[in-house]
Amino acid sequence: MAWRNAFFQMRRCAILSAFAALPMLLSVPALAQAPATDALPSWNDTATKTAIVTFVERVTQQGSPDLVPPPERIATFDNDGTLGAEQPIYFQLAFALDRVKALAALHPEWKDKEPFASLLKGDLKGALAGGEAAIFEIITVTHSGMTTDEFETIVRYWITTAKHPVTGRLYAEMVYQPMLELLAYPRGNGFKTFIVSGGGIDFMRVFAERVYGVPPEQVVGSSGKLNFELRDGKPILMKLPELNFNDDKTGKPVGIQMHIGRHPIAAFGNSDGDLQMLEWAKGGGGVRFALLVHHTDAEREWAYDRSSSIGKLDKALDTALAMGWTVVDMKNDWKTIFPFGSK
Amino acid sequence: MAWRNAFFQMRRCAILSAFAALPMLLSVPALAQAPATDALPSWNDTATKTAIVTFVERVTQQGSPDLVPPPERIATFDNDGTLGAEQPIYFQLAFALDRVKALAALHPEWKDKEPFASLLKGDLKGALAGGEAAIFEIITVTHSGMTTDEFETIVRYWITTAKHPVTGRLYAEMVYQPMLELLAYPRGNGFKTFIVSGGGIDFMRVFAERVYGVPPEQVVGSSGKLNFELRDGKPILMKLPELNFNDDKTGKPVGIQMHIGRHPIAAFGNSDGDLQMLEWAKGGGGVRFALLVHHTDAEREWAYDRSSSIGKLDKALDTALAMGWTVVDMKNDWKTIFPFGSK
Repeated sequence: MAWRNAFFQMRRCAILSAFAALPMLLSVPALAQAPATDALPSWNDTATKTAIVTFVERVTQQGSPDLVPPPERIATFDNDGTLGAEQPIYFQLAFALDRVKALAALHPEWKDKEPFASLLKGDLKGALAGGEAAIFEIITVTHSGMTTDEFETIVRYWITTAKHPVTGRLYAEMVYQPMLELLAYPRGNGFKTFIVSGGGIDFMRVFAERVYGVPPEQVVGSSGKLNFELRDGKPILMKLPELNFNDDKTGKPVGIQMHIGRHPIAAFGNSDGDLQMLEWAKGGGGVRFALLVHHTDAEREWAYDRSSSIGKLDKALDTALAMGWTVVDMKNDWKTIFPFGSK
Repeated sequence: MAWRNAFFQMRRCAILSAFAALPMLLSVPALAQAPATDALPSWNDTATKTAIVTFVERVTQQGSPDLVPPPERIATFDNDGTLGAEQPIYFQLAFALDRVKALAALHPEWKDKEPFASLLKGDLKGALAGGEAAIFEIITVTHSGMTTDEFETIVRYWITTAKHPVTGRLYAEMVYQPMLELLAYPRGNGFKTFIVSGGGIDFMRVFAERVYGVPPEQVVGSSGKLNFELRDGKPILMKLPELNFNDDKTGKPVGIQMHIGRHPIAAFGNSDGDLQMLEWAKGGGGVRFALLVHHTDAEREWAYDRSSSIGKLDKALDTALAMGWTVVDMKNDWKTIFPFGSK
């Protein structure tokens, strides 16, 4: 991908040169001045922003040799850590923990059964000591045994009430302002934007529609099996306590193919769980874009990467650096973090 | 659903009354005259057409008490027998049979192994004597062992060359002109149209985009499992010989929830395999529409229903009649069958 880097460098130079002429017309330094139609106002004018704008212009501007027809302008976005905060706990796990508390009265046996016993005593660390198996059990009991419509109602209520443990803000506010702009910018240029999350699809859909303006049919996620039944003559879909699909790592390109049936031309992630999605997007031939959000801002958000238990970014970062993918340095590339400011 | 029927009757009367005034203005009988903006010109002016138009107007016209916001205007269409001919053989099975012939040289063992041995001798009946297991084996060997991109290329070529055994027309021409209009009409009124087929999703996507103008991400279908791999550093998705999802009968509402995540407000089918999809659409609350295509025209197409091995329509027809769903009488409701005429 060396030619691509060279191209971006050339474009960057051209754009910087063009800006260099602006001070004659403007009373403030040109490089600090966003163009009048800046679609990414929360992004600093760094190489990252230039790479994004250059890509979108290359594939959408009439006359460009790299023009991509609108139906093929598919962009896929991971959720946790890419579009919003995932520290100190994935927000769907926060939802599941709240549900365990709400359901405890119906499950007296949980008092003596891990991971529930620890959870109900407020010992999150003890509850999660069982690792992925414990998390899977918590997710399963809180995401099954009800209809899809009932589950949607529960999630809809939770999203409007549950608060982040560090900031005290609604989870719906814990999303990155620069990434909201990065959803809207390609969308305004004929892209269809999809969320491709390791989180549960029924949960993500409620959140994605409300917070990102992404409709349910443009959400790909993990899922449990469903069973169609007639209850008193009314059709329902019961959520079963059985995994159907794990939309993570190699599952992400599979989920993309199952749901979308096209190669994305751009993909956005932040962790090793997104590596294959970015590889899949880049492997489609033609001009393609892959971006990783690197959490480098301990003050305004959180700083973590290679050794983090949540959102581990190790192999994907090496690949991005080797292949010349775009890596967001959150601390330097973003003017603001959350719509309300920072942590 | 009696109130719904009563309502449609009332609306029909109102519309007929309105038309009754037309002869004063027009030189031909009003009921034989389509309105200037007729979106369904291949439909006769029967109660079926009125029911369709009444539904679309109720949920889309400004000021209607039943107005549905555009994002919720989801319509799902079965393919085989609903949008195009499925006699004398499902067209995806025709594809699979052609593939068996093409692949035979690579599989010398097929000479002595059913269902392939019979197939290669041209004995279709003998090959299908093994029932669903035989069909499953034929579909499996012809739909796996290659990448998704390779499969797409094969289907794309087949669709532009394979001819229907009775009419000698391309399969892409064996679609119903009235149903092409019935895809375009709601779409022109803010609906998003989805194909929900028992056929394989990767196969249907190629066909749906080319013939119906439905993009790949709006196709739901049966699928095999996929495996993400890097082949010489290039990412691929291998199609595995293992069923992932059967999008038929109770699988259709499940597939709709997995892919779309909303209740359709209108669903269109033709066989018992579509019953649960129509029940799911009707069960969503509010004004909903369910339509069955009844194959009643032996001369221009094929006539079959309760005892047919292909496209059996028995329990779904009883349900439709009992619930007052709309049933297309192909012989009387359709002016033309195929874009080129009839069988």
